[in-house]
Amino acid sequence: MHIFYTPDITQNTYTLNEEESKHCVRVLRLSKGTIVNLVDGVGGFYTAEIIADQPKKVVLSILNVEHEFQKRNHYLHIAVAPTKNIDRLEWFLEKATELGIDEVTPIITDRSERRVVKDDRLNKVITSAVKQSIKAYHPKLNEATSFSDFLKQPFDGEQLIAHCIDYAEKKFISDLVIPHQKYLILIGPEGDFTPEEVELALNKGFKALTLGENRLRTETAALSVCFEINYLNR
Amino acid sequence: MHIFYTPDITQNTYTLNEEESKHCVRVLRLSKGTIVNLVDGVGGFYTAEIIADQPKKVVLSILNVEHEFQKRNHYLHIAVAPTKNIDRLEWFLEKATELGIDEVTPIITDRSERRVVKDDRLNKVITSAVKQSIKAYHPKLNEATSFSDFLKQPFDGEQLIAHCIDYAEKKFISDLVIPHQKYLILIGPEGDFTPEEVELALNKGFKALTLGENRLRTETAALSVCFEINYLNR
Repeated sequence: MHIFYTPDITQNTYTLNEEESKHCVRVLRLSKGTIVNLVDGVGGFYTAEIIADQPKKVVLSILNVEHEFQKRNHYLHIAVAPTKNIDRLEWFLEKATELGIDEVTPIITDRSERRVVKDDRLNKVITSAVKQSIKAYHPKLNEATSFSDFLKQPFDGEQLIAHCIDYAEKKFISDLVIPHQKYLILIGPEGDFTPEEVELALNKGFKALTLGENRLRTETAALSVCFEINYLNR
Repeated sequence: MHIFYTPDITQNTYTLNEEESKHCVRVLRLSKGTIVNLVDGVGGFYTAEIIADQPKKVVLSILNVEHEFQKRNHYLHIAVAPTKNIDRLEWFLEKATELGIDEVTPIITDRSERRVVKDDRLNKVITSAVKQSIKAYHPKLNEATSFSDFLKQPFDGEQLIAHCIDYAEKKFISDLVIPHQKYLILIGPEGDFTPEEVELALNKGFKALTLGENRLRTETAALSVCFEINYLNR
């Protein structure tokens, strides 16, 4: 199965851009008459036929479309402090896309060593995972935001913060959430959120979350949350 | 907290090897009188004091030991086909060590593109994760084995195989296992097990497992299983 990501699809035919056309003809060696699939990132899963196969201009004719393809029964938004080593954040984005996630926001916290992220590169990682795992919905990557600004944004749904501070009472996700809701979950940097940041979130109505006894890296904690939310909504 | 991995510890004092000694003195800049921690990989968690701090020979005096430190309440053995890109297997080993795993066997299947793995390098990844996540138990990495030879080995406990073949009846892990057991779970290569391999495992008493609708990469499937088993034993 050959998948192309076509967010700008509108007509009954679609022309791949030069790069994708070249990939289609020169790398995949597909030619006129071949059936391929397209995903538009907003739930559309298309079956199409190649009707023109020039190396710089491949034209596809849409044969069939499924809307809301494998639509998820909940909405998961994870706000995570970008890791010092960006590969670890990219790895999280790839895996979260495979497992199921709707929205990601990099949050810059007091203890964040990395304060800048390149959205375009991270989006490429997500798009590649979308195609590889055949997802009709493309997870939304927001611009990096400071923790305090992020908390000022309105959000409806269940709001949780994962932190490692001992004194506070914490519960497992399974004891805090009910299925089929919207969830926003905050994951801190290497070195955790500061007590002030945790306090700020709790005052905003976030519930404190534990991921168990294991000492997890930032990206492992974020993926662990992604696993558990999807598991609880299975 | 500074952790050293000391599998050969036997006495009330321990001498770090030259490499570790150098790391301790030159990189971590630790000196006489500093308290450090040691894990022996078989459940021992030690508190020790540096009593000699030569760059090539650091000597530690054991102050206290906890046996069966954070002993797990189940035993998880995952046999997984090594990924074509070895980074993906290494990544799985790091994350599985963080989340909790006891034994890993690379299995060479009919569709395995990679048929050789370097145990020493993979073990370094595990040891590094053991130290980073403060695990007193070091997961056991077995030598790569052919799928058919592996199935000839005796194993007590619950035995599952994850595969993507549609016709067969499959269940979720949560419907197949009970907590606090020994588990052996097989994960196939890119392109899945062959029908013959699945048949062979089913005839050996393995139960067929589904990980849900998501199309997961080999290492994501393996980690997903690791997460679910640990979740069900939480």
